[in-house]
Amino acid sequence: MKPNISDGSDRKVIFFHAPQSRSGGTLALLEELSADYELHLLDFKKGEQRQPAYLAINPMGKVPAILHRDVLVAEQPAVFLYLAELYPEARLAPLIGDPRRGPYLRWLVYYGSSFEPAVVDRSQKREPAPPMTSPYGTWDDVLNTIHAQLARGPYLLGDRFTAADVLWGIALHWTTLFNLVPETPDIRAYIERVIMRPAMQRAAARDAEFVAQQAA
Amino acid sequence: MKPNISDGSDRKVIFFHAPQSRSGGTLALLEELSADYELHLLDFKKGEQRQPAYLAINPMGKVPAILHRDVLVAEQPAVFLYLAELYPEARLAPLIGDPRRGPYLRWLVYYGSSFEPAVVDRSQKREPAPPMTSPYGTWDDVLNTIHAQLARGPYLLGDRFTAADVLWGIALHWTTLFNLVPETPDIRAYIERVIMRPAMQRAAARDAEFVAQQAA
Ligand SMILES: N[C@@H](CCC(=O)N[C@@H](CS)C(=O)NCC(=O)O)C(=O)O
Ligand SMILES: N[C@@H](CCC(=O)N[C@@H](CS)C(=O)NCC(=O)O)C(=O)O
Repeated sequence: MKPNISDGSDRKVIFFHAPQSRSGGTLALLEELSADYELHLLDFKKGEQRQPAYLAINPMGKVPAILHRDVLVAEQPAVFLYLAELYPEARLAPLIGDPRRGPYLRWLVYYGSSFEPAVVDRSQKREPAPPMTSPYGTWDDVLNTIHAQLARGPYLLGDRFTAADVLWGIALHWTTLFNLVPETPDIRAYIERVIMRPAMQRAAARDAEFVAQQAA
Repeated sequence: MKPNISDGSDRKVIFFHAPQSRSGGTLALLEELSADYELHLLDFKKGEQRQPAYLAINPMGKVPAILHRDVLVAEQPAVFLYLAELYPEARLAPLIGDPRRGPYLRWLVYYGSSFEPAVVDRSQKREPAPPMTSPYGTWDDVLNTIHAQLARGPYLLGDRFTAADVLWGIALHWTTLFNLVPETPDIRAYIERVIMRPAMQRAAARDAEFVAQQAA
């Protein structure tokens, strides 16, 4: 096993990104980590994510995706776990043995396994599937679980800012904008706390440039 | 940070389980890890998962869930990540720096973030949401991605059996039984390879006893 701190170049990742999409979270995380990355923009309007060149990289035709040492990592929570541990000096991932380790894994996974399915149902005005099938109970179960956790603040895992906050700060930002998640004062304060960070602002500015670039 | 190998008792987890449910995967993983666990059975027929005592532990009212050192870990892929790293000597989790690390994270997360949502839509005879909303593209994208990965076999990540195989072996077992995933020879062979392992058989036998116990 090679140590992965010593040699900077070995940590470089190729990042597949579409502006104003789910991959914006990864862009922000890369900025938070001061990571070394090479960006590949995909133009969704041209359907580039479904063309053979990209499907050969990620057969799901989805972003975010990264290549590190030629190996694909896809699925947002997995990309977050991977990148945060590739840059341990940024201290965005509680280590094994830290009491925050379990909550860290739980909240990253909860995003993709429960929150997104709930948001999809909600946005499509579909009822959740029956309890033995649906991965979450009711929309209120999901909201209440998030509220209870944020009440422990200032961050999702308490005092320490982690990669999970990058994911959740952005997720709550767009779901409140779309009027899916109600914007309570706690949620508003949490979103601000996360998205006003310099690295997050830098990522948002870059993303706006990418939008302009693709519109040109 | 305490080392977590030295002291066996410190690794004991409390495991919340309902027979013949999604938590069967965790039961199998605990057996594969020869883990020290205390089992708490929930009776779904009595609605125990939605009663205050359990909601105080997991506000989502879902299994699997574990408590380790009084901290909750829920969401199946997170529970798998956590347990496999709590018992590193079982070597079911590729370490950081191992080229299988990224695929390991990707496939555990893919289960909850893409496969389950696809299975839910499929079982409910619902169309996937539009591509910018749905976390997976089409049902065929999901099946093709799984087939392509299994073709590298014998295990999901190649030669080495990992916790991801416990999850996927069982998931493909029940989704083929329910005629959701078509049982190709490759998939059949993979399922057999996983579920015929002694620890998996032991878990299946225990689960059958729990069913009987709750029926009594
Ligand atoms: N399960 C994936 C979902 C990713 C996803 O759906 N990304 C959207 C962007 S918002 C996408 O790439 N859509 C393009 C398409 O499906 O054609 C994850 O968690 O990363
Ligand atoms: N997102 C959760 C889903 C777990 C889940 O839905 N478990 C089902 C068992 S198959 C459950 O506990 N259902 C009981 C209920 O919702 O009342 C995970 O990945 O662990």
